[in-house]
Amino acid sequence: MNDPAALAARVREGDLRLHELEEHADPETAAAARRKLLEAETDADLGTVGDFSFSAGDAEPNIENMIGGAQLPMGVVGPVPINTDGDSAGGAAGGEHYLPLATTEGALVASVNRGCSVIRTAGGANARVTKSGMTRAPVFRVAGIAEAAEIVEWVQGSIEKLCEKAEGTTNHGELLDITPYVVGDNVFLRFRFDSKDAMGMNMVTIATQAACDLIEEETTASLVALSGNLCSDKKPAAINAIEGRGRSVTADVTIPREVVEERLHTTPEAIAEANTRKNLIGSAKAGSLGFNAHAANTIAAAFLATGQDAAQVVEGSNAITTAEVKDDSLYASLSIASLEVGTVGGGTKLPTQAEALDVLGLSGGGDPPGSNADALAEIIATGALAGELSLLAALASRHLSSAHEDLGR
Amino acid sequence: MNDPAALAARVREGDLRLHELEEHADPETAAAARRKLLEAETDADLGTVGDFSFSAGDAEPNIENMIGGAQLPMGVVGPVPINTDGDSAGGAAGGEHYLPLATTEGALVASVNRGCSVIRTAGGANARVTKSGMTRAPVFRVAGIAEAAEIVEWVQGSIEKLCEKAEGTTNHGELLDITPYVVGDNVFLRFRFDSKDAMGMNMVTIATQAACDLIEEETTASLVALSGNLCSDKKPAAINAIEGRGRSVTADVTIPREVVEERLHTTPEAIAEANTRKNLIGSAKAGSLGFNAHAANTIAAAFLATGQDAAQVVEGSNAITTAEVKDDSLYASLSIASLEVGTVGGGTKLPTQAEALDVLGLSGGGDPPGSNADALAEIIATGALAGELSLLAALASRHLSSAHEDLGR
Amino acid sequence: MNDPAALAARVREGDLRLHELEEHADPETAAAARRKLLEAETDADLGTVGDFSFSAGDAEPNIENMIGGAQLPMGVVGPVPINTDGDSAGGAAGGEHYLPLATTEGALVASVNRGCSVIRTAGGANARVTKSGMTRAPVFRVAGIAEAAEIVEWVQGSIEKLCEKAEGTTNHGELLDITPYVVGDNVFLRFRFDSKDAMGMNMVTIATQAACDLIEEETTASLVALSGNLCSDKKPAAINAIEGRGRSVTADVTIPREVVEERLHTTPEAIAEANTRKNLIGSAKAGSLGFNAHAANTIAAAFLATGQDAAQVVEGSNAITTAEVKDDSLYASLSIASLEVGTVGGGTKLPTQAEALDVLGLSGGGDPPGSNADALAEIIATGALAGELSLLAALASRHLSSAHEDLGR
Amino acid sequence: MNDPAALAARVREGDLRLHELEEHADPETAAAARRKLLEAETDADLGTVGDFSFSAGDAEPNIENMIGGAQLPMGVVGPVPINTDGDSAGGAAGGEHYLPLATTEGALVASVNRGCSVIRTAGGANARVTKSGMTRAPVFRVAGIAEAAEIVEWVQGSIEKLCEKAEGTTNHGELLDITPYVVGDNVFLRFRFDSKDAMGMNMVTIATQAACDLIEEETTASLVALSGNLCSDKKPAAINAIEGRGRSVTADVTIPREVVEERLHTTPEAIAEANTRKNLIGSAKAGSLGFNAHAANTIAAAFLATGQDAAQVVEGSNAITTAEVKDDSLYASLSIASLEVGTVGGGTKLPTQAEALDVLGLSGGGDPPGSNADALAEIIATGALAGELSLLAALASRHLSSAHEDLGR
Repeated sequence: MNDPAALAARVREGDLRLHELEEHADPETAAAARRKLLEAETDADLGTVGDFSFSAGDAEPNIENMIGGAQLPMGVVGPVPINTDGDSAGGAAGGEHYLPLATTEGALVASVNRGCSVIRTAGGANARVTKSGMTRAPVFRVAGIAEAAEIVEWVQGSIEKLCEKAEGTTNHGELLDITPYVVGDNVFLRFRFDSKDAMGMNMVTIATQAACDLIEEETTASLVALSGNLCSDKKPAAINAIEGRGRSVTADVTIPREVVEERLHTTPEAIAEANTRKNLIGSAKAGSLGFNAHAANTIAAAFLATGQDAAQVVEGSNAITTAEVKDDSLYASLSIASLEVGTVGGGTKLPTQAEALDVLGLSGGGDPPGSNADALAEIIATGALAGELSLLAALASRHLSSAHEDLGR
Repeated sequence: MNDPAALAARVREGDLRLHELEEHADPETAAAARRKLLEAETDADLGTVGDFSFSAGDAEPNIENMIGGAQLPMGVVGPVPINTDGDSAGGAAGGEHYLPLATTEGALVASVNRGCSVIRTAGGANARVTKSGMTRAPVFRVAGIAEAAEIVEWVQGSIEKLCEKAEGTTNHGELLDITPYVVGDNVFLRFRFDSKDAMGMNMVTIATQAACDLIEEETTASLVALSGNLCSDKKPAAINAIEGRGRSVTADVTIPREVVEERLHTTPEAIAEANTRKNLIGSAKAGSLGFNAHAANTIAAAFLATGQDAAQVVEGSNAITTAEVKDDSLYASLSIASLEVGTVGGGTKLPTQAEALDVLGLSGGGDPPGSNADALAEIIATGALAGELSLLAALASRHLSSAHEDLGR
Repeated sequence: MNDPAALAARVREGDLRLHELEEHADPETAAAARRKLLEAETDADLGTVGDFSFSAGDAEPNIENMIGGAQLPMGVVGPVPINTDGDSAGGAAGGEHYLPLATTEGALVASVNRGCSVIRTAGGANARVTKSGMTRAPVFRVAGIAEAAEIVEWVQGSIEKLCEKAEGTTNHGELLDITPYVVGDNVFLRFRFDSKDAMGMNMVTIATQAACDLIEEETTASLVALSGNLCSDKKPAAINAIEGRGRSVTADVTIPREVVEERLHTTPEAIAEANTRKNLIGSAKAGSLGFNAHAANTIAAAFLATGQDAAQVVEGSNAITTAEVKDDSLYASLSIASLEVGTVGGGTKLPTQAEALDVLGLSGGGDPPGSNADALAEIIATGALAGELSLLAALASRHLSSAHEDLGR
Repeated sequence: MNDPAALAARVREGDLRLHELEEHADPETAAAARRKLLEAETDADLGTVGDFSFSAGDAEPNIENMIGGAQLPMGVVGPVPINTDGDSAGGAAGGEHYLPLATTEGALVASVNRGCSVIRTAGGANARVTKSGMTRAPVFRVAGIAEAAEIVEWVQGSIEKLCEKAEGTTNHGELLDITPYVVGDNVFLRFRFDSKDAMGMNMVTIATQAACDLIEEETTASLVALSGNLCSDKKPAAINAIEGRGRSVTADVTIPREVVEERLHTTPEAIAEANTRKNLIGSAKAGSLGFNAHAANTIAAAFLATGQDAAQVVEGSNAITTAEVKDDSLYASLSIASLEVGTVGGGTKLPTQAEALDVLGLSGGGDPPGSNADALAEIIATGALAGELSLLAALASRHLSSAHEDLGR
């Protein structure tokens, strides 16, 4: 019974359901059967979708109802020298990195690469993870605010027990803290974990569930949702922009005036002005949580290349770019509040993604644990800073050039 | 000179730069040379990255410094019947759709598929594009607020001229309106275009540049940045959540109580409660612009499958989910404020992406123009609604089951 | 029956209710009776509360259950020369203004006055109302998004009829536009009116109610709340910060370097830096809608002095301060997005408030209508700008002085 | 030289400056001289402004350039029984409270009073301060992110020393914690203090300055602004809405169905629906930090009556109202994230304000310290909840009545 066409026919006839094919065939055949079905029901030819390089069986932790693969072009930028501190540099040996980027947006890779080249000429960037912790915030229903106060008090007095329950579910995760928020008869508890080299959403969800079980056992609170949106996962939210989620990571660089002029064809002053008017004042007026030019572009491309969760680009965009003239140089920085990355788990084991992590020297767990994901965060932040510089310079130089034309009129 | 290894060596020796390889070799060879270089400089083996199914030459509008392809698993959900209105349904013939999703997040496709199945049982969903328009908002520097007022007045009196200039750069785009915002000596002009079946960012940028040229010629305003962040592209911003960008699209469904109970193992009341406490109150307390459970997940997966811009998942997450009990049924809706999609341009011509669009019957321009992108927006919104239902039901039923256990104690 | 003590006794005995006293006595006596009651039930002596200068009867449109008056100290700042355009200057003859401020915050008046003095030395400020319109946004329940689309279409096709109904309730108000927003089965319609010299909330509420009656008569939509919070009144909301409410008003000034140095004891550069780090970057990181130092202080004090609604200080705080070095001078501006002011209605007729408006020459309706409220908005914005300058200078000069100490170490 | 007219003449002649009058006359005379001046320069008659009941000399900590007093009508609502916990109830003996409100908004006092009456019928409300702490967040300039990391590390290792320095400036304040935020070369440190019965802004500013002095002495960081807007004072900011400032306080009440029907002329269901559509979904769509109907109204009126800082109504509006049907009753709550109140300092000693605090039994410091301000916060929250209930009921009953009319057609 390993004939895709026959299996597809059974689905069409209602004999099998779309998601039951793996019960009747190996993963490759099941995928082929689905392609057959779709080709029969639509005008599509799924030849390229079916021509993928990973093993359908190995992809099972990542997909259901599989039909094949999506392919995006991958480019590379760098090398870019990054000065990180000893602890977090971890697996990122040597400090020179090529960063693979998968995207369909023309000019993005070229733009980031130009920025990396300028950073290289300037002697390299600095990058630091300034805060770390993956969060999950269940919401409980209580009778009212009097009970809410009791629950909060119980939680604050039971940290040790909750920690034990939560950490009992994981080999690596450590519970860092629990922050309570009360809204009427709702109690939100924001659990924050050190998830080491894993992005950690699954680990943290399971550990938080265990803690919630204890809370329900020992108190009168009723769990309504394991995620109460104060986590906050895959939503634009000030709580992440302010308090961070995953890694809070910052990169900066000081670029001498002559490098700005020769390589970026503008001045430190013009870049600083563009940044203030666009990234600070413009974003302020837009009611934004993202005070940057296009950090999400670089982050999305790096996420896709290295097997991160594409929907978490949302949180990655909570980033502030600064640019100012300091000692006749341009000082520029990018501070990403909530960059959720991992070098184990998620899509990191898929072949193209694992290869991309190998280019970075960051595949798998770091030594010490967490150092690989820290290094990945720092490199992505530096790449995104390069993208910011390049775009700001393009804006500023275009303006200068048109200013020059004005003079020529 | 088409030997990748030799080309890689020239780059390593500093004879060529990474981005110059295409000047010396065909695109496939240039990509191969970069892989050689990376393999030499790092511990990576890029065999799978090099095993891609698209033509390197054809990918040139999408990538630079190409090294190969990233591959993500693609699954499919559906079919799901969607009732759209006549005008916007466009190419989406018949109203039954399979939606391809590319993701690395396990359980996502299964979850959305379950939601689609429930929607199907309930007789289908409704979906509507309620507002449409791609924006670009340049920022100009003026002498002060007196001049700012003059510039705004000039712009409001010169719409026709500006329209002519802007539309002169495009075959398809139509300028819909220009909204001015003044902050001190900054004038922001938010241009909004109908970009038909294109997501339209490039079209709109070029057209806005032409209008800006006219403004600089005829007024004293100086363009500082073609994007002044009131657009707002790839940043979480209230202006998009409120006024929309790309398509504002809404999907809803009414599910009879017995379907909720039998298929989702919970009640309309429990889903409504979970939605209120988590998606409304929780997001409120989080300072969020996204009042949903995980809309970005489905949007990201659909974007990757169909060649959309992954960084624009940021705007897609500006979405509100509602759930209430109406006439003993569950009424649920998802309203996405700013979904930026296209069926032409961007990554839509890449082979796997084009095939995915063919599954939807939405590849290329629609008839009338814009109808394919409208239909894509409506289908993605419906898929995301399915994902919301499925996750809310999982939360609600888990709670119910533990409540049942409580009773049994 | 005009003995306060006897009336108070009847309330204590349950014979009368607190709010029924005016049915049994004149307003002054009713207030006296309530004071007696409170003095009997608490340890309070309400002698000063009872010593008020307005007529209890005249205050009836402003208060219920009156017990007397609250008294706040009132100071004055100025004069400050303001250059407004001809149209909006209206009653603000001459361009030199003293601004009364009522506050209990020590140092506030002195600080604003210092800023006014510096603006005067610099030759005056500019101020402009850049947008105007009071809003009310009812929310309607509909069956679902298909019906929502129909309602929106009906509204957009019935503007003339709705305008007629709405404007039929008012002598002065003009309906400017109606902006629809759809969220699932909720239709929000943001009505925007020109309310001339009135702040306009009451006028606009009544007019919107009339329009809603027509909508309910002619469509299937059901009004749930006359205010659906997209107005948005007395809540911090991005929609006001972006699109404005009441007056959007901007003030700016250019201050020569020597004036900054001699009068503010700092430099244009230091003020610009403090503004960028505090008001732009700090507010960005705080997830704020207010990118200013303390605009709400001046606004609150001016509101209290001139009879505005104190709770609308909330919207007044949606303001952006900019500061930069231009041609060796300091350019500074304050842009308040949503300043809700009036010179008729509300508390403007109370004696002390009317006198304060007389100081400004802005009591009552302007010629043309709206010009008095415009002028009030412009003067308050200039006063708030003065407060910004003064505080930024204090921060910057303190820093400079400590920097000087550093050098002396 | 105590003739107001003569002093006014000297100011007009440029012999004296407006703010120097207190150097030449007693406070009453100085104020009279300013009134003379304004009356001469404008058309105003300031008779009522000059007829104030407080001592000009005693008002000196609250005002400069004094001209007299502003008078607002004051009303009263209550009594309302509030169940607080033992610790925080403090001076609020007995649990029955009358709350004075000063406002010029007609119908506000009546509306809040109606809500109080319903709460009384329902057996009283609960109220709790759930978090407490006044904040000040200076911003420091550092060389870059490497130095930023060092400063943060130094601060975290020097809490004891910083605490000693900070607390050395105050008799009452206690430093609770310091939270660091890094944005490029900016380090923000959010200091949080227990300021007991004082609102505490001044106390906290002085104490933070002392700590900053130590930081500048012992590290390379340079203070740019003692307030870096992450405090965040008098600006709408998510950091306050999420983490709180001053008191985070919650009030709730359960109202039996029959009370809702008889007293509010509507149903629990209709109120819950109005709350969801208006306060939750409407505010969500508005990009708001305030998910309530008009909490700022009650807060502003209570602030003005009791001598609080009117500009801090801004933070008070960060409040979430919930309403739901529970066990056939209406459960409603109001959670104010950042209510900044005090019973000592600020305007609390002014005569009418002190009398209003006496009505509450909360004048001066509490026993234990902080309990009076806690009680004030709880009573204001309960009053604001009453206002929410009353307005929601008005919306819901109007709808019901029009629905009834529909049926009658």
